[in-house]
Amino acid sequence: MSLFRSRPTLVSHTSRQLLITYRHHPSSQKMSFRDYSNLETPASCYVDFCLVPVGTGNVSVANEVADVQRVLKASGLKYTMHSAGTTVEGSWDEVMKVVGQAHAIVHQGGVKRVQTSMRVGTRTDKKQTAEDKVKRVEGILSGDQSPA
Amino acid sequence: MSLFRSRPTLVSHTSRQLLITYRHHPSSQKMSFRDYSNLETPASCYVDFCLVPVGTGNVSVANEVADVQRVLKASGLKYTMHSAGTTVEGSWDEVMKVVGQAHAIVHQGGVKRVQTSMRVGTRTDKKQTAEDKVKRVEGILSGDQSPA
Amino acid sequence: MSLFRSRPTLVSHTSRQLLITYRHHPSSQKMSFRDYSNLETPASCYVDFCLVPVGTGNVSVANEVADVQRVLKASGLKYTMHSAGTTVEGSWDEVMKVVGQAHAIVHQGGVKRVQTSMRVGTRTDKKQTAEDKVKRVEGILSGDQSPA
Amino acid sequence: MSLFRSRPTLVSHTSRQLLITYRHHPSSQKMSFRDYSNLETPASCYVDFCLVPVGTGNVSVANEVADVQRVLKASGLKYTMHSAGTTVEGSWDEVMKVVGQAHAIVHQGGVKRVQTSMRVGTRTDKKQTAEDKVKRVEGILSGDQSPA
Repeated sequence: MSLFRSRPTLVSHTSRQLLITYRHHPSSQKMSFRDYSNLETPASCYVDFCLVPVGTGNVSVANEVADVQRVLKASGLKYTMHSAGTTVEGSWDEVMKVVGQAHAIVHQGGVKRVQTSMRVGTRTDKKQTAEDKVKRVEGILSGDQSPA
Repeated sequence: MSLFRSRPTLVSHTSRQLLITYRHHPSSQKMSFRDYSNLETPASCYVDFCLVPVGTGNVSVANEVADVQRVLKASGLKYTMHSAGTTVEGSWDEVMKVVGQAHAIVHQGGVKRVQTSMRVGTRTDKKQTAEDKVKRVEGILSGDQSPA
Repeated sequence: MSLFRSRPTLVSHTSRQLLITYRHHPSSQKMSFRDYSNLETPASCYVDFCLVPVGTGNVSVANEVADVQRVLKASGLKYTMHSAGTTVEGSWDEVMKVVGQAHAIVHQGGVKRVQTSMRVGTRTDKKQTAEDKVKRVEGILSGDQSPA
Repeated sequence: MSLFRSRPTLVSHTSRQLLITYRHHPSSQKMSFRDYSNLETPASCYVDFCLVPVGTGNVSVANEVADVQRVLKASGLKYTMHSAGTTVEGSWDEVMKVVGQAHAIVHQGGVKRVQTSMRVGTRTDKKQTAEDKVKRVEGILSGDQSPA
């Protein structure tokens, strides 16, 4: 990740030139492929996900959601459950692993099919926590409350 | 699976006690952690994702989507682009890695923030490809078209 | 809606028979089409949505999110903002109208492209508020906290 | 739009004061409500949605998806089914109505709970069809395929 972090605009220009070049030179196509395999997943992300067990014959999904919360708790990652999903913060690989384990624990419970809707956000300009995002908007809206 | 099924409420209570206990006894912490850390992510899944670069000052996202398609091609995974996203099939870890690399390549292109919407499906009853799913529905609908 | 409510399983069976019939009788195809236009949208739903302005040249989306919160407030509908979106409750038509107005207000602010990710849930077995859903899961998890 | 742009911070403060004031003065409530209630939903949008019936006891969702396709066909809107959802194009109100009817038809079939994941896109700079979007990206990628 530090590699990726240590080469911002300049190298992204370089990699674009490579991509253009390889259109004319198969050899550089290999280079661009090697480049992709070296691509590291983001060092931090947030994922908001809503997992739905399919084919359970039970309209309630609360037991499966509770199982998922236990997996999240055991992961040691920062997470928050809300009424329409759960938000998890961590490195891309950590967060995606725990969501995959959430599918696994629900399958272990006997559910044959699991469908999840996810929102994933990454940014390179700064670290921003879930709280930061809400506070930022509430700060703007707080002006609406100010006396005339 | 059957094991898990054969120990319903009672043992789930027990495991809850472990979760409590571990706050005081590292030994049982290991137990509960081992339980979840042994959970493997699904061996196969499909992911349909739509990646949006944020803050680019460019209304078009076609260049970023093209970069993502190049990363997908290099991955060797089976994928299909449609007008509202791209569907990828493979193991959970493979697919999540390539989507993370898709974020990385877009960041390398100079985009500071990337937001992706994903649908993820896993099932344990059978393998079903993207084509299978469409054919299944078209098969049902084909009856609607049949001559009187 | 009361109509739809007042004809549960029986008429859904009837409509299935119509669908089958029309495969053989074009006349009943018309019926099934009329049937669809009579279909009312759900009387209640929840929508959790995350709106992203595209092409603004600004990495922060807080101002747009604040505009959206003002539209939601003016709607009189019940809503809650969290770090990864906002959950709104109401009739299908009311909720979808306000989300459309959220797109409109952001466009009015000069954003040429808006992309939103939504989760929508409807159920006919009972009314369940956002709070109910969280409490239900927390109730299950509270057992995890109980003394051994 | 230009109007809105020509009244930046100052008037947005004023409208904030109106929002406060209206809590005490129904008259100004009308004003602020008129402001938002006059907001029209977008004249065109695309929606890509994936509907999941919950609690059916049937792992397959093909019958419900087929019902949804019939509702879409009857709507007269332009739509395309793919393996991970269906993309529909039309005005905001038309598209949201048909997705609501999709929930309704699945409920009529006896499904008590329906969960849908949606991506919604609107833009004011130009009309772009689903085909346009795919062609645009394929055009960029076609350069990658060109012989050396």
